[in-house]
Amino acid sequence: MIPESDKADHFHDECGVFGVFDHTEAANLTYLGLYAQQHRGQESAGIVSTDGKQFNTHRGMGLVADIFQKSAIKELTGRHSIGHVRYSTSGDSGLRNCQPFCYQYAHGGIAMCHNGNIVNAPELRDELEKKGSIFQSTSDTEVLIHLVARSPGATMQDRLAEAVNRLSGGFSLLVLVEKRLVGVRDQNGIRPLVLGQLDGAWVLASETCAFDLIGATFVRDVEPGEMVVIDEHGLQSLHPFSESAGKFCVFEYVYFARPDSTLEGVNVYQARYRIGVELAKESPVEADLVIPVPDSGVPPAMGYAEASCIPFQMGLIRNHYVGRTFIEPKQSIRNFGVKLKLNPNRELIKGKRVILVDDSIVRGTTSRKIVEMVRAAGAKEIHMRISSPPTKHSCFYGVDTPDANELMANKMNLDEMCKAIGADSLAFVSFEGMYRAVGKQRSLHCDACFSGDYPVPVEGKRSPQLSLLHFHSRRSE
Amino acid sequence: MIPESDKADHFHDECGVFGVFDHTEAANLTYLGLYAQQHRGQESAGIVSTDGKQFNTHRGMGLVADIFQKSAIKELTGRHSIGHVRYSTSGDSGLRNCQPFCYQYAHGGIAMCHNGNIVNAPELRDELEKKGSIFQSTSDTEVLIHLVARSPGATMQDRLAEAVNRLSGGFSLLVLVEKRLVGVRDQNGIRPLVLGQLDGAWVLASETCAFDLIGATFVRDVEPGEMVVIDEHGLQSLHPFSESAGKFCVFEYVYFARPDSTLEGVNVYQARYRIGVELAKESPVEADLVIPVPDSGVPPAMGYAEASCIPFQMGLIRNHYVGRTFIEPKQSIRNFGVKLKLNPNRELIKGKRVILVDDSIVRGTTSRKIVEMVRAAGAKEIHMRISSPPTKHSCFYGVDTPDANELMANKMNLDEMCKAIGADSLAFVSFEGMYRAVGKQRSLHCDACFSGDYPVPVEGKRSPQLSLLHFHSRRSE
Amino acid sequence: MIPESDKADHFHDECGVFGVFDHTEAANLTYLGLYAQQHRGQESAGIVSTDGKQFNTHRGMGLVADIFQKSAIKELTGRHSIGHVRYSTSGDSGLRNCQPFCYQYAHGGIAMCHNGNIVNAPELRDELEKKGSIFQSTSDTEVLIHLVARSPGATMQDRLAEAVNRLSGGFSLLVLVEKRLVGVRDQNGIRPLVLGQLDGAWVLASETCAFDLIGATFVRDVEPGEMVVIDEHGLQSLHPFSESAGKFCVFEYVYFARPDSTLEGVNVYQARYRIGVELAKESPVEADLVIPVPDSGVPPAMGYAEASCIPFQMGLIRNHYVGRTFIEPKQSIRNFGVKLKLNPNRELIKGKRVILVDDSIVRGTTSRKIVEMVRAAGAKEIHMRISSPPTKHSCFYGVDTPDANELMANKMNLDEMCKAIGADSLAFVSFEGMYRAVGKQRSLHCDACFSGDYPVPVEGKRSPQLSLLHFHSRRSE
Amino acid sequence: MIPESDKADHFHDECGVFGVFDHTEAANLTYLGLYAQQHRGQESAGIVSTDGKQFNTHRGMGLVADIFQKSAIKELTGRHSIGHVRYSTSGDSGLRNCQPFCYQYAHGGIAMCHNGNIVNAPELRDELEKKGSIFQSTSDTEVLIHLVARSPGATMQDRLAEAVNRLSGGFSLLVLVEKRLVGVRDQNGIRPLVLGQLDGAWVLASETCAFDLIGATFVRDVEPGEMVVIDEHGLQSLHPFSESAGKFCVFEYVYFARPDSTLEGVNVYQARYRIGVELAKESPVEADLVIPVPDSGVPPAMGYAEASCIPFQMGLIRNHYVGRTFIEPKQSIRNFGVKLKLNPNRELIKGKRVILVDDSIVRGTTSRKIVEMVRAAGAKEIHMRISSPPTKHSCFYGVDTPDANELMANKMNLDEMCKAIGADSLAFVSFEGMYRAVGKQRSLHCDACFSGDYPVPVEGKRSPQLSLLHFHSRRSE
Repeated sequence: MIPESDKADHFHDECGVFGVFDHTEAANLTYLGLYAQQHRGQESAGIVSTDGKQFNTHRGMGLVADIFQKSAIKELTGRHSIGHVRYSTSGDSGLRNCQPFCYQYAHGGIAMCHNGNIVNAPELRDELEKKGSIFQSTSDTEVLIHLVARSPGATMQDRLAEAVNRLSGGFSLLVLVEKRLVGVRDQNGIRPLVLGQLDGAWVLASETCAFDLIGATFVRDVEPGEMVVIDEHGLQSLHPFSESAGKFCVFEYVYFARPDSTLEGVNVYQARYRIGVELAKESPVEADLVIPVPDSGVPPAMGYAEASCIPFQMGLIRNHYVGRTFIEPKQSIRNFGVKLKLNPNRELIKGKRVILVDDSIVRGTTSRKIVEMVRAAGAKEIHMRISSPPTKHSCFYGVDTPDANELMANKMNLDEMCKAIGADSLAFVSFEGMYRAVGKQRSLHCDACFSGDYPVPVEGKRSPQLSLLHFHSRRSE
Repeated sequence: MIPESDKADHFHDECGVFGVFDHTEAANLTYLGLYAQQHRGQESAGIVSTDGKQFNTHRGMGLVADIFQKSAIKELTGRHSIGHVRYSTSGDSGLRNCQPFCYQYAHGGIAMCHNGNIVNAPELRDELEKKGSIFQSTSDTEVLIHLVARSPGATMQDRLAEAVNRLSGGFSLLVLVEKRLVGVRDQNGIRPLVLGQLDGAWVLASETCAFDLIGATFVRDVEPGEMVVIDEHGLQSLHPFSESAGKFCVFEYVYFARPDSTLEGVNVYQARYRIGVELAKESPVEADLVIPVPDSGVPPAMGYAEASCIPFQMGLIRNHYVGRTFIEPKQSIRNFGVKLKLNPNRELIKGKRVILVDDSIVRGTTSRKIVEMVRAAGAKEIHMRISSPPTKHSCFYGVDTPDANELMANKMNLDEMCKAIGADSLAFVSFEGMYRAVGKQRSLHCDACFSGDYPVPVEGKRSPQLSLLHFHSRRSE
Repeated sequence: MIPESDKADHFHDECGVFGVFDHTEAANLTYLGLYAQQHRGQESAGIVSTDGKQFNTHRGMGLVADIFQKSAIKELTGRHSIGHVRYSTSGDSGLRNCQPFCYQYAHGGIAMCHNGNIVNAPELRDELEKKGSIFQSTSDTEVLIHLVARSPGATMQDRLAEAVNRLSGGFSLLVLVEKRLVGVRDQNGIRPLVLGQLDGAWVLASETCAFDLIGATFVRDVEPGEMVVIDEHGLQSLHPFSESAGKFCVFEYVYFARPDSTLEGVNVYQARYRIGVELAKESPVEADLVIPVPDSGVPPAMGYAEASCIPFQMGLIRNHYVGRTFIEPKQSIRNFGVKLKLNPNRELIKGKRVILVDDSIVRGTTSRKIVEMVRAAGAKEIHMRISSPPTKHSCFYGVDTPDANELMANKMNLDEMCKAIGADSLAFVSFEGMYRAVGKQRSLHCDACFSGDYPVPVEGKRSPQLSLLHFHSRRSE
Repeated sequence: MIPESDKADHFHDECGVFGVFDHTEAANLTYLGLYAQQHRGQESAGIVSTDGKQFNTHRGMGLVADIFQKSAIKELTGRHSIGHVRYSTSGDSGLRNCQPFCYQYAHGGIAMCHNGNIVNAPELRDELEKKGSIFQSTSDTEVLIHLVARSPGATMQDRLAEAVNRLSGGFSLLVLVEKRLVGVRDQNGIRPLVLGQLDGAWVLASETCAFDLIGATFVRDVEPGEMVVIDEHGLQSLHPFSESAGKFCVFEYVYFARPDSTLEGVNVYQARYRIGVELAKESPVEADLVIPVPDSGVPPAMGYAEASCIPFQMGLIRNHYVGRTFIEPKQSIRNFGVKLKLNPNRELIKGKRVILVDDSIVRGTTSRKIVEMVRAAGAKEIHMRISSPPTKHSCFYGVDTPDANELMANKMNLDEMCKAIGADSLAFVSFEGMYRAVGKQRSLHCDACFSGDYPVPVEGKRSPQLSLLHFHSRRSE
């Protein structure tokens, strides 16, 4: 899958969260924790910190390193902090929807951010509006804060437990109140949330790679349906949901997570590599070279090469300076969008039979362009191998997939797809192969985007409601 | 009074509003209406427009001309629009508190902005939080939108009437919903609100100068306690308050309003000029020159000169390029802050007995610096004449005055003040003189900042509650 | 004349310079000296400082207060500094033409800036190019630096003397080399240059108002054709030109200079005021009010009012927040451009016979709009009085006037002009009246823009040569 | 070698050039040609275009995609264009030194840019200054333009030939005059320059990867000492230098060039891969994994793995969002600078004997940090293999190397280096191995940074002269 989202053809990244309680450099660690998780969302980022009384917020559109200057970090005082990087999956874009959200309510200040999607947010919002709630954003998080604020619960835990029990979907949630940091993972544990320690302080993150950068020690994954409440007395584990069952998103292994992260006990890089091995066994083909579509195609291509004893080569070179927008010449260049990101090394490719390994095919347009470009570079045969099963269904739990009817695998069979992308052969890894590679039971995972088996009901769902409000603002808040 | 607020010594400007219903260039007219009222607030500005369904917002920190570029105006589509310029009087600073506010609630979209101050906002906020409301800003406007959203009223008018009846203070309010523009003036009519027409469309503004720029016709002042509801059927006048009485802010005549505006039937320039005439009659002094402290001191100085037959001269030259911050040399320059804004023309002043005319003395520090600077320029005698009575009390209705104990007139008698500012004589216009000049009865005005007679109870009031939340954001919302 | 140049109808400001030698806060004083002279050029500004070895430059487009932040001033180290504000009169726009220019040549570093125009710059440039010189800008200053660099003179003074002797035109020039600050005024002294002292350090400026702000003492005007050389041994006065004669620009008194400046012994404000007195004597008219076109029309209007015993009133209110560009509604507003800057106070004007006093009529379009606007505000009669003689000729010495054939007075007689601008009567001050008001002999002045008597030959001159080079750059240099 | 220059320890990139003659989208193609060569310089970029008369320039600090917006490209009209990306190797930083330079001289406009370094620029500059030349920048290019402008040659070719014959060093040069594009490669051909065609138009670039993006056809390398003159009559090949001999920079193969480029007939990726093969043969070691230091270490690591039959794994994960500056926590994180860019995948590494493959060791500090970080991730043994010989000498031909006395290999023998970086073993490829891998004779290359054999005399050279001038500017030029 091509990095730097090619909007025409790929999943977008979802979100990443980070939180720290009782550390002298809370905001700075949060900033680094977000930076290490930047791949989970490049649209906006935000941090809220508190000293136990005052709450400070800094949010902005763009990349973490651009949003947070020294002066901003300096004003984010206090020993507790949460942060968020975001690629919009519900709620329209814009600073107004940047997380974390920070509000004042009857019991003081409250800040919240989450990774994932709340499937029943529109219904909850309607219900709340009927009771007199007003909404400034289109974000699910605002719904949740309203639920907490209206809960009669005596303690923060009670209010939050009552509120999250109203939610259905896949989400990992951080809540910061005056003297407490709370992490909640939905009852299916669809999205990741990991727990660590640094200098005696607790830290929470979406992925372990955030711990590596700051030198924190990984302690364990937060469990599906678990609520960890961290305060001056330490960490308390609660289970507010009536029931829970592990249904971790298998697509985190295939594409989302950073390869150096370890989630639910599985190292992402190794899972990807082993998928390549399985793929080679399931769908061998005679060829001269195995070439990855960088970056997430690299480990499975290496696995494929090892298992098939066909040489692995970096035949597509990635440009590291991809910017937001490029000015295309009028006299158009073939496959311009893809060429800005990838260039085939024609010396390597020409006259060769190549196996291209990518992580998924979504709409199919990018795959078609890559195949075309590699063929123009002189490849004699092109065999496409995909390190996940065909993507036939939309995700409603935090991955920004197009409508099912835009997914190539939803509309075509394998032969039709192969022809459409112009390859000489095409194969996807099987469910069995994928889970063998991951090394865990299929029943513990959500693979709805491949199988259509949705662990949380999504009847009649699709596309977040259109917002009435359009916001444009400028300067510092 | 020195323009471009010298924070050490002067009142800050308050706010200005503008609204238009059913005009093809709604946002552009609002932009110009705000520009013409820029003197009422230079901290931030915002516009919300609607086409009857979708709401668009653009807000920013800074001046109208900087915030609204062509592209921003273009995205503010729709035939209805409201806008706001702001100098914070309640709520801390920042984009988060920029008006207009725009929310979604059970009955659709709602945008609101106001000029003035709601005295009982903290109590209302406490009450709302207890019922489960959450607050993202520290602005009074957010309180009001919550009241409207929670009102059981069947119609927008009912809900708004119920809500505004809960408010006490001085405010002029604009509300924009899908198909309706509403203007409300508090029951005492403390803050101004004027009604006009342009090409058949209704327009509302804080001051008539906004109408002049866009070529609209002034129709009348909105009355104290009146609610004008404008929709496709035209304008409807309601009186939602149980009772009302005119108590217009006399300080608008003295300082706030632009001199070319006419408010409550009185032309501001002429009122100021006549105050100067009264002042000359009440407090004559032998001198060679009458010199205004520009800009609001110009008309009363001219009146004083005419009545006293002493030549009027512009002895203090204003620098038109005053920026936000200036870098003071380490080796400090005497009266640096004042000199950046005003320079005495020493050729004119040296050896002369001068009468300086200013609009008010707040903390007294600026007056002292001006007197010192004029004396250093060679003046033989300096007689200070002030075109308002002594400012002894704080304003709680939308003018950002310091605490009473910081007001020079609250702590000193006339002689002490004269000595403190270093003048040879000092005189203020009397209440009688001021109202004679304005040409209307004192009973129709609020002059609490001079008299302490507060038309709306302010017991135990002062300084808006400190916010728990600090916000900093960047980029476009 | 309307402030904030209305390009359709008015002269543009020229340039301003400032220099200081051997002061611990050289750059900061220069920054303030430029700020005080901002009216002389709002397009760009720059400062060069030196510690006697290293030269530091900071230049930018826009206003002084925006270009120079604390960090920029901090990097402008050294005890010697020169600065410049510019409104392009020769050379096209852009950072590339921002002064001061700073080069390295055989004798070290050299920085230079000037106010005015070198009439024979194109010929000199051609000659230099033939000798192998290359040009990066289109500025006259670059020509001069080349002349200095190619001069065989043994000392800096010799080289500079040789170079300036090649120049013809009107210019005041500052040169900064490692250990010397030089000020040169052209042999006719057309443009101003004043000398002062602060804490023992010498300062040079275009106008005395720069000295007022920093607390420097005015010493004397630099003489026509004088070169003052300041170094560690003090100030030395040289006269490098073969001959010289005072021909000071009378338009500085009428419009350019700040009213609080005193140039060639004449206080600008008082000169303007007395022109109004003369104008009233020469061209009286029965009327109810004398109204200035702010700001330069204010003093002559006051003089006119005093002499005619007709009340003076500020009937046109200036908007202090005029920005660069405004978005005009499609449905156009009459006289939009003028209304953004000035609003007539209709309460004051309606039904009145008014005398409008302005400083000059250039193309006539602005005057026509003002007359139209004042009549729309209800004036019964409008009598226009101009505080300078008719502007019939272009300036080639540093004032950006349109071609003679665009000047209204060049194409029409008085009656035609009166009719064209729509006034009931029109009168200009006479040459005699103007010089009586200034209080000095006509022979000591350049009034070529009124009389066509050019003190420096300008045969065949007009419009600076078109540049081959267009530059656009960004970020910090 | 770590991407995104770690200033403490690595070579910096040099420069890249691109030119096109007679194409309807000249500027846009240049922009894309620079983007594809962004790895050759990230500090600044610029484009000059001409329509045969008017020259247009746009230059800025930063990345190509940020500097050139649509509007900038639009103003770069004309069918001929040259562009430059730069990492300063001579001349200090700043917009003032951004190339291309554009001047006007006796024969019209002239724009120039180059990749490389002119060794005798300081002497030439002194000589020119003595003749009266003035310098605004500290760039070598300005020297060259002066030489051309002062040349008595009758034609552009003559003038340029005379000028380049004065130069000594390593440089590839593009010159754009009104109706001619010229490319010159120094007589040793140290820096690359390639020639291609697109739609009948000639294009010139530093690397072939620029042609791939725009779809141009590679024609041939410009030869050492060749001057190609392109005008409406086609391409003419001249050889202005008295003699010439191929001495191509071997470090382009090792590190500089993009792997998908082919220079002097050698594909960069394949050369790197084969160096890895040679390295494995020369310096084998028993181990579990071969891990590259991305990105330039990837191909040699793959070659090493293949030749040694040890598994290749991406054990260091690169962060793709590295920004300019990061805010380090006070409580410092070990190896923070390196960790921001690379994270070891500890699941892969722990308990393993690893071979790390990098392209070079400069100061050694980064290597030490990487070894430390990999060991902290659990590696049992760490064997460092370097795909170039030890870097013992500075480059004077366009590569920004530190002084020789800062180079680790200049001060230590192999054992000392191994100990200093903390590895269990260390080996560099031999000269023989390297050239075997490249597949060409050593005598055709410059390897002075490894061998000290400088093809162009550099006696007494080092560090470009310190500039007298410091420039800071803002806004658009």
